[in-house]
Amino acid sequence: MATLIAPITFSPGADAEALHKAFKGWGTDEKTVIAILGHRNVYQRQQIRKLYEEMYQEDLIKRLESELTGDFERSVYRWMLEPADRDAVLANVAIKDGSKGYHVIVEIACVLSSEELLAARRAYHHRYKRSLEEDVATNTSGDLRQLLVGLVTSYRYGGDEINARLAKTESDILHSSIKEKKGNHEEAIRILTTRSKTQLLATFNRYRDDHGASITKKLLDDASDDFRKALHTAIRCINDHKKYYEKVLRNAIKRVGTDEDALTRVVVSRAEKDLRNIAEIYYKRNSVHLEDAVAKEISGDYKKFILTLLGKDV
Amino acid sequence: MATLIAPITFSPGADAEALHKAFKGWGTDEKTVIAILGHRNVYQRQQIRKLYEEMYQEDLIKRLESELTGDFERSVYRWMLEPADRDAVLANVAIKDGSKGYHVIVEIACVLSSEELLAARRAYHHRYKRSLEEDVATNTSGDLRQLLVGLVTSYRYGGDEINARLAKTESDILHSSIKEKKGNHEEAIRILTTRSKTQLLATFNRYRDDHGASITKKLLDDASDDFRKALHTAIRCINDHKKYYEKVLRNAIKRVGTDEDALTRVVVSRAEKDLRNIAEIYYKRNSVHLEDAVAKEISGDYKKFILTLLGKDV
Repeated sequence: MATLIAPITFSPGADAEALHKAFKGWGTDEKTVIAILGHRNVYQRQQIRKLYEEMYQEDLIKRLESELTGDFERSVYRWMLEPADRDAVLANVAIKDGSKGYHVIVEIACVLSSEELLAARRAYHHRYKRSLEEDVATNTSGDLRQLLVGLVTSYRYGGDEINARLAKTESDILHSSIKEKKGNHEEAIRILTTRSKTQLLATFNRYRDDHGASITKKLLDDASDDFRKALHTAIRCINDHKKYYEKVLRNAIKRVGTDEDALTRVVVSRAEKDLRNIAEIYYKRNSVHLEDAVAKEISGDYKKFILTLLGKDV
Repeated sequence: MATLIAPITFSPGADAEALHKAFKGWGTDEKTVIAILGHRNVYQRQQIRKLYEEMYQEDLIKRLESELTGDFERSVYRWMLEPADRDAVLANVAIKDGSKGYHVIVEIACVLSSEELLAARRAYHHRYKRSLEEDVATNTSGDLRQLLVGLVTSYRYGGDEINARLAKTESDILHSSIKEKKGNHEEAIRILTTRSKTQLLATFNRYRDDHGASITKKLLDDASDDFRKALHTAIRCINDHKKYYEKVLRNAIKRVGTDEDALTRVVVSRAEKDLRNIAEIYYKRNSVHLEDAVAKEISGDYKKFILTLLGKDV
């Protein structure tokens, strides 16, 4: 379930006009920007952007960038992009971040559906005149490259069929690959980058049955290098991406100084999808409401905007 | 240019009726089947199939399979499938063929456009309830797996930009990778599986400039194992797929006994695209018209059908 609260009917023309007025003169009326854009779904935002361009011959996103600043600007910018385009931007930034960004690449590749991932790859072409896998491959090597390129190029079968025998064989392969500290992870990479998510869940369950602990636990015990960390993220995202996102949010909030980038990324990406479920998991795990935890850590228009996307009236 | 001769206007209803009549009674009127289906383009064939199903409550392709036999049946069957579905079938057969089928997998991955390859992957899901890369990966290992999986999962950028400096660097990488008989081909695989075709052409040209011979020539001198053979096919398909297909046809025809599978594959896949150009290259290279060479090697309804697709009235 989403946290975004958007009206069923709205007037893109009136919105465009109100935004244009909010930009006018000295200073920007941020309150209006938040009140409008923080309550419009993806289709509504695209309509507003289109009409705004027709009415004022300028790109709304560019105008927002010049009007707003800091984390507020960045969150509104990401929010305004079409989801596939936003994923392309997030992936590109992550590639440039090197070691610090691998988990974002894995996240995009493993959380999105096959068709959504494809749309992100198409948007990447359009925006960067290169392919996503091209940039990932150029900036990595060895097992890490095989894993990341395999994940971003995957087009997994989306059906519900499970092969129980295969789950057994492949959970054994994953186990011996994880035990090995060095050497060849070719088979583990093959399994994680090509099998359907349903099949992988069966494999992970089988792993738990056979080894008395989840595969992620085993991996975490020794997630020392980038490859093992990426493997860990991939398995967590495939296994239960909501739980994964809860932890991303938890870490972002509890870090000294707050990780605004991570906070923005999760809120903006999931507000229209399943952020309500993620918030419920957060509450169960931390005995604090996500909105309250967030509210304590950030401030200003950025805070108002993020809380709006979290479904809290501000 | 295509070799297929299809009418601008046609009646799918009349075609369906004529085909139904051709199937009736003892024996089949193959002449009518060839006269109709050998002169209909992909959209027209789909319309006929749809209307046939509505009129007679049976699948035209299944009926054709039960009415026809041998190479004729196989060629009509492949011709009747939608292109993406046909590629999925060809890839699946090739995977089962093991070592003998690798070149077909490479062909599909490297000749198709990014969007066509995607459509084939989607059709593969639909037909086999698994992903194409999943089946390719399960049946291969090592460098060969990295290459084949990389090729079938690629979604290359389709633009015309060329980076000349990169072409130089990467032609050097390819050269040293090809010279090495053993060892790590990771970088060569990265280049061939992720760069845009335009960029790769620039890289191949640079290779020729620097080394006085084309990269395929160098590779062919020692295309001893499956990996090097697949590499060779990939480069040829990317470099000039029409020349590549000419050679496939040449080999299929000159082989004792004729390679009907290869002949059918190329004719059926290219008749609506660029088979006329391929036939011209064939004539230039062999001083014999492709139709005449084909006519000498095969016989019966299969011959009539293939020649019809080659644009020759029979």
